[in-house]
Amino acid sequence: MNLIKASRDFLLKPLQIVNGIVERRHTLPILSNVFIKQENGKIIFVTTDLEIEIETYLQTSETVISQEFSALTVSSKKMLEILRTFSSDTEVTLAKIDNRLQINAIKSRFSLQILPADDFPRMPKEEMPESTLTLSQQNLKNLLHLVQYAVAQQDIRYYLNGLLLLIEGKYLKFIATDSHRLSYASIELEDEWERKETIIPRKTVQELSKLLNETEEPVIIEVFPKKIRFAFSDIVLTSKVIEGKFPDFNRAIPVNNTKQFSIDRQSFLQGLQRVAILSNANEKFRGVRLVISNGMLSIVCKNSEQEEAQEDLEIDYNQDTIDISFNINYLLDVLNNLNSDSVQCAFENANSSTLITIPKNDHFKYVVMPMRL
Amino acid sequence: MNLIKASRDFLLKPLQIVNGIVERRHTLPILSNVFIKQENGKIIFVTTDLEIEIETYLQTSETVISQEFSALTVSSKKMLEILRTFSSDTEVTLAKIDNRLQINAIKSRFSLQILPADDFPRMPKEEMPESTLTLSQQNLKNLLHLVQYAVAQQDIRYYLNGLLLLIEGKYLKFIATDSHRLSYASIELEDEWERKETIIPRKTVQELSKLLNETEEPVIIEVFPKKIRFAFSDIVLTSKVIEGKFPDFNRAIPVNNTKQFSIDRQSFLQGLQRVAILSNANEKFRGVRLVISNGMLSIVCKNSEQEEAQEDLEIDYNQDTIDISFNINYLLDVLNNLNSDSVQCAFENANSSTLITIPKNDHFKYVVMPMRL
Repeated sequence: MNLIKASRDFLLKPLQIVNGIVERRHTLPILSNVFIKQENGKIIFVTTDLEIEIETYLQTSETVISQEFSALTVSSKKMLEILRTFSSDTEVTLAKIDNRLQINAIKSRFSLQILPADDFPRMPKEEMPESTLTLSQQNLKNLLHLVQYAVAQQDIRYYLNGLLLLIEGKYLKFIATDSHRLSYASIELEDEWERKETIIPRKTVQELSKLLNETEEPVIIEVFPKKIRFAFSDIVLTSKVIEGKFPDFNRAIPVNNTKQFSIDRQSFLQGLQRVAILSNANEKFRGVRLVISNGMLSIVCKNSEQEEAQEDLEIDYNQDTIDISFNINYLLDVLNNLNSDSVQCAFENANSSTLITIPKNDHFKYVVMPMRL
Repeated sequence: MNLIKASRDFLLKPLQIVNGIVERRHTLPILSNVFIKQENGKIIFVTTDLEIEIETYLQTSETVISQEFSALTVSSKKMLEILRTFSSDTEVTLAKIDNRLQINAIKSRFSLQILPADDFPRMPKEEMPESTLTLSQQNLKNLLHLVQYAVAQQDIRYYLNGLLLLIEGKYLKFIATDSHRLSYASIELEDEWERKETIIPRKTVQELSKLLNETEEPVIIEVFPKKIRFAFSDIVLTSKVIEGKFPDFNRAIPVNNTKQFSIDRQSFLQGLQRVAILSNANEKFRGVRLVISNGMLSIVCKNSEQEEAQEDLEIDYNQDTIDISFNINYLLDVLNNLNSDSVQCAFENANSSTLITIPKNDHFKYVVMPMRL
C-alpha cells in the first residue's frame, strides 16, 4: 500500500527537525524511531527521548497521501540518511509492504523495520499553561546563546544541570551557573507576569537553540507545572523541567566591584587564546593570571615545564594593581559567546568574584570566581 | 641573544612541513622537538620519529640571522601553534635567553624550553644510492593515491604494513595488499634499471603523499639498502624501509576473468554508499551482494534486523549470472580513490577474486577477494 508520494526535500525537512534528540543507543528500541501519523490529511512527525518531544508537520503541497494511512514508527536516523543520499528533487514513495516501510526512489528500494505506533510513548497533552509568553525567535536564540555555556554538566546538584527561566514582573530572565561562574541575561516583555521559576534541562536548551531561526517570527512559550513548551515555525518542542530550587543568583552578583576597565573583546579573547597554547589542554583546570596595573593588562600563563607566555594589552586603568588568576576556559567561554565590541571587567580584589558586563547594557551579567594558581 | 628576525609566514612554512611526523606522546621528549640549525647562513629545520626524518629550509630573504646562532631544539607543535596565532606579516623575533627560546611579536612574549641540539637523533648520511629515479611530483602523488589505501594496518605480517616500490626494467611499480585485496599502479621511466624491491612504511607513504604538490616539478627518489630518500621542493624526506620479502603479487592478479562489464564509477559508488546505510557501521566486515545478470547489476545489502536495500543499475552484460558478495569497504575504497569516469569489473566465478581496472589503461589493477555472507 502506497502511503505517501513526495519530493525528497519535503520529506527530508521534518526528519532533520525531529532527528536531533534521537539517542543513538537506547534500551527502548522504539525511541530510535520517528512516529509518523496522518491526522486530517496532515502528516505529523514526532520523536522523543522521554524527556523531550519534538513534533513537526510535512508541508503537504505537491505530496500525495493515502487516505488509508494512519500511523507507524520507523528508524529516524536510517530514514534521514536514506533521503539524504537522493538528489534534491527526487520523487520518493513510502509504501507499507509485509509490515515493513518501503522507501522507493528511481532505482533504489529500501525496506525498513516498523514498530507499532501504539507503543510510541507520547507526552500527555496538558491543560492550561500557567504562563504564556511570546517573543521573537531571534531574541530567544540570542538570550540562550548569551547564557547556555555556563549550565553545569552532570553535576550532582541536579538543578544546576539546567537553565533557570525566571519570569519576574515585566522581565524574562535566564540564569545559568555551575557554581564557579554564573551567566545572566534578560529581556523586557510586553506584559507583566507573576513571578515564576522553571529550570530547563541542558539538552532541551541545546536543541531549542539549534532549531530557532534568526527571524522576527514569534515563539510561544507555555509554562506548565512540570513541563515547558516552545511553539515556533512548524515545530512544537515539549520538555520536562527539572524539579528543584535554583540557588539565589542575586546574592552571587557582586555590587562593590569598583576597580574596572573596558577592553576590546576580540583583543582580550585573542590574547587569552594565544597564551593558552602553553597551558596543558589535558588539564581540567587551566589557569591564567591577569596583572592589571596602571594603563596595562598583562595576561600570563605558565606550565609545568616552566615555559611562559605573556601578552600585554593597553587599558584605561589607574586604580590599585590587581594580580588575579582564573580558569582560562571561564574567560574564553564568555568572550567567545558575546557579540559586543567591548566588555567591562570589574574587580573588588584578587579573592572575590569578578563581574563581566557589556558597557551601557544592563541585560547581561557574567560572574566568575578567581582560582588560586 | 637575538637569533632570527623574520616575518611570521617565513617561519611558519618550514614548521608546517616538518611537524607532520612529530608524535604527540613519546618516551623520548626530544622527539617532540624541531631541530633548528644554522649552516652557512641557511636555517635548517629537522624533525624525526626515528623511522622518518624530514628536513627543510627557511627561505632567507628578508630574514636577519645572527652569526652566533648554531643549533637548538624546541617543541615543534608549540612553536607552530604560537606562530599560527599571529597575523600573516607580523615580524617575529627568536631570541635565546637563559637557555630558553623566546618568541617575541608585537606585545606577545613566549618563553619555551630548549633541549640540547647534540641530543637530537639525526639519521646518518648514506653513501651512494643503489638507484636514483626522477619523476614529477604530480605523477608520484597520483601513483600513491591509486594504491595506498590497500596497505595493511598493524598486520603481524609486518611486510604488508608498507607499500612495495618495485623498479623493474623501464617501470616503476607500486603494490599494496592486506591479503584480502591488492592494488597495483605503474609508470614508465625514461631509463632502464636493475630489478629492485623496497617496502616503504605506511606512515612514510601518508606523509609523503601530503607533502607532494600537484606540479611538474621533479622528485628525486634515492634507494639505499635500508633506507629511501625523497627530495622535492625544499624538502628532503628520509625513511627507513621495511626489511622482509613482499609476497609475489603477480600470482594474485587473475588472468581468466572473462565475465566483465564496464560501469560509470560515480553511479556504482553512489549505489554502494546508499545501500551501505543499512549495514551496521559498527561491524568490521560489512557485506554487500552484487547480482550481475542480463543487462542489470543489482546491489543488495541486508542487516541483522532483516532490513534490506537494493539499487539496480543498467549494465552492458549478457554472460552467465553471477551472485557474489564483498566487504563493501573494499569496493568503496577503490571507487573513491580512482578518478576515471568508468571502471571495468571482471569475474571468473563467485568464489574467486575479482579484477577491477580502468578501461584502456594497463597501469592500474585492483584485485578483491569475495566474502561469504
